[in-house]
Amino acid sequence: MAQKPSIPKGTRDFSPVEMAKRNYIFQTIREVYALYGFQQIETPAMENLSTLMGKYGEEGDKLLFKILNSGDFLHGITPDEVATTSTLKLAARFCEKGLRYDLTVPFARYVVQHRDELTLPFKRYQVQPVWRADRPQKGRYREFYQFDGDVVGSDSLLNEVELMQIVDTVFRRFGVRVCIKINNRKILTGIAEVIGAADKIVDITVAIDKLDKIGLDNVNAELREAGLSETQVEQLQPIIRLSGSNQEKLATMREVLRESETGLRGIEETEFILSRLGSLACDTAATNPTAGAATAVLANPIELDLTLARGLNYYTGAIFEVKALDVQIGSITGGGRYDNLTGIFGMPGLSGVGISFGVDRIFDVLNALDAYPKEAVSTTQLLFVNFGEREADYCLQALRSVREAGIRAELYPDAAKMKKQMSYANAKQIPFVALVGESEMADHKITLKNMQTGDQQSVTVDELINTLNA
Amino acid sequence: MAQKPSIPKGTRDFSPVEMAKRNYIFQTIREVYALYGFQQIETPAMENLSTLMGKYGEEGDKLLFKILNSGDFLHGITPDEVATTSTLKLAARFCEKGLRYDLTVPFARYVVQHRDELTLPFKRYQVQPVWRADRPQKGRYREFYQFDGDVVGSDSLLNEVELMQIVDTVFRRFGVRVCIKINNRKILTGIAEVIGAADKIVDITVAIDKLDKIGLDNVNAELREAGLSETQVEQLQPIIRLSGSNQEKLATMREVLRESETGLRGIEETEFILSRLGSLACDTAATNPTAGAATAVLANPIELDLTLARGLNYYTGAIFEVKALDVQIGSITGGGRYDNLTGIFGMPGLSGVGISFGVDRIFDVLNALDAYPKEAVSTTQLLFVNFGEREADYCLQALRSVREAGIRAELYPDAAKMKKQMSYANAKQIPFVALVGESEMADHKITLKNMQTGDQQSVTVDELINTLNA
Repeated sequence: MAQKPSIPKGTRDFSPVEMAKRNYIFQTIREVYALYGFQQIETPAMENLSTLMGKYGEEGDKLLFKILNSGDFLHGITPDEVATTSTLKLAARFCEKGLRYDLTVPFARYVVQHRDELTLPFKRYQVQPVWRADRPQKGRYREFYQFDGDVVGSDSLLNEVELMQIVDTVFRRFGVRVCIKINNRKILTGIAEVIGAADKIVDITVAIDKLDKIGLDNVNAELREAGLSETQVEQLQPIIRLSGSNQEKLATMREVLRESETGLRGIEETEFILSRLGSLACDTAATNPTAGAATAVLANPIELDLTLARGLNYYTGAIFEVKALDVQIGSITGGGRYDNLTGIFGMPGLSGVGISFGVDRIFDVLNALDAYPKEAVSTTQLLFVNFGEREADYCLQALRSVREAGIRAELYPDAAKMKKQMSYANAKQIPFVALVGESEMADHKITLKNMQTGDQQSVTVDELINTLNA
Repeated sequence: MAQKPSIPKGTRDFSPVEMAKRNYIFQTIREVYALYGFQQIETPAMENLSTLMGKYGEEGDKLLFKILNSGDFLHGITPDEVATTSTLKLAARFCEKGLRYDLTVPFARYVVQHRDELTLPFKRYQVQPVWRADRPQKGRYREFYQFDGDVVGSDSLLNEVELMQIVDTVFRRFGVRVCIKINNRKILTGIAEVIGAADKIVDITVAIDKLDKIGLDNVNAELREAGLSETQVEQLQPIIRLSGSNQEKLATMREVLRESETGLRGIEETEFILSRLGSLACDTAATNPTAGAATAVLANPIELDLTLARGLNYYTGAIFEVKALDVQIGSITGGGRYDNLTGIFGMPGLSGVGISFGVDRIFDVLNALDAYPKEAVSTTQLLFVNFGEREADYCLQALRSVREAGIRAELYPDAAKMKKQMSYANAKQIPFVALVGESEMADHKITLKNMQTGDQQSVTVDELINTLNA
């Protein structure tokens, strides 16, 4: 045989078992979004490069997969130009279209393009693959799905509240214990303001985040290395040592940020969100991580974490992140509030808030916890063994009733050796096998074999249906 | 405002309403496939060009969307080479990957690549977009979904029987009346053999297909123009005038093809399939299109149609096509038996049979017939009007119970003017609105308004849930 064909590096085939698991994940998230009034949209895999370029920074432009123009893509370009033009610029001449890099820019483009048809606030979810010409490595792919939900056209913090409920409900349905971390861009801005180090906020959050690992002295040393003065390091102490319930943390921060209008607004926003979630008393660091659960709206703890500093380029208000408690893996969901989604397309002033479920990592978490419900990943429930043409005809009749009753069933299409047919049932993990030979046909019965226990019983079609539907 | 952004020609955005309809179509087909033991797979959007090139003819190679290699795609190519090499060959130098053109070649590649993990027969379905650089026109897109189901690794005609049941069940569930047309490549080969015109089979089927429109004399004239002799035209008369039930047609053809071994095998195969479907007596041309329905397995008529001549390049046995009876549109589903799916990848001898649902056309048919079930396309069931912060807090409590009961519900996030909130409910076609003001809060009640009738009633949360779940 010739060499096996292969697929481009960083891409994946999904087998039936993987698809069943992924469908379970997608379907669960879909259902929760629908419960909250979110509607699905889809956008094309290809966008005009003019839509994509310049939206992800210089590095992002390089990571866009570009589609060669059809036909004479060299039209109007001289060999001399080819020789003297940079690769990136030539690519822009040869290519008008590129593959979607994320779901956010296409969504912004969608909102602007269809603004006359949309009623705001617009609550949309979208689950589609995106493509990035990144160097592939473990857990990083060149094609992967994103699952985003956003509300645009409303400044209300109730949207943040509902997104947290959505996150909580999704992971509750998955049976995965998580901690939701929340922060606010305005609090970070406030901290930078009061200590007078607007350009150091990332250094500060990175250093503080290491407290548990390296201890207070080393954190302080790192802050000094980052160029903070003794006074500034001193001012940061209450923030570094911030602990207790969300309410206690907010009280401390209100004091620290009393001079910063922006910072205080961040405190208020966070307090609004946490109070609606009944999570002010929540303290994930305490022995009982669900302290205050009696009044809590969420099944999972939500914790104010000032070291959470993702998306500082675009988030302007709340910032969220979700971590699995029982599996060592990075953030499995994240999001935040942004103020100017569609400004890049000439439609300013549209605020929004969104979350993105990391479905590939959630897949890994559910695998690690073996948390897939059996019925979600089971396929065929019953295989009729094929003993020959007459028996197969008999089985076809029975199959009609069985399928009408909603049972997923097959007849092995060939009268192959029993062993081969049984291997097929095993490979597909089919739990029941139906055997119909001469005597069964004469008695109008079916021999039903439970593949797990090995038990066999002689049943009518109706009894078979009742057994499988039980 | 700047110029509205747009999407590449031939591609589409799908709005929430369109997505709801498409999801209904996809979900219905999925469920039927699952009932028959088919499992889903997915393959990457990008395949190596070596996998795709040469599989769709010269024209197809041109219609492949090719992905420019990342980074220095010009590496090792001199300006001189650029000047002297053909565009198509240069494209092959600049690009290693291309976008999927159909689901068949990626499926063949999948089967060969994963042959050690697969248990045959392998019954798979796949629903993913494909891309073709065709000239866009009404109903023809550059990105569109295909929905394919195939059984590979089994020669049994029971697979054909089950695929016809799948087709029938899908359209029955859609509430769309169809006629399934069936033919067999071997019968067409037999006809060409017995009249001695192996190269004219397409001309013959095209001419015969016009019988109803242009009449017998004109059909015969066309056959002569195609180069058939008087004797050959004479020999074709019983085929042109073929009519009656499937059984009668098969009897006539058995006589016509008595000298062709291949032709007779085609007759036998067709008879096997139609007899298992209880459709030998079926005669769609008769006044009662469901004649013989008493014993028929299918809800829709299936008819032997010798003019059906699709996919003659690859189909080797049965050929199918589905036409909607109540909407003027081309074929909405098609398929057939092929003998050598994976030979192109060095794995010969693997037979298969498959069907492809034309989901874009099915979408048009269901639109034309307004055949979407109401519950399939409805989104939010209940909107809580937002009268202010205290009222919103009250609504949040009620919403938790309502959603726990599985009702899709929203709270308008801002305390906007009543009129604006009502427009939102109307735009989203939300059937019920909940009003909670001072008096409702005092009485622990909710005013529930039916948006269709205008009726209002004062209810408890439990009563509200019962009303909506009724």
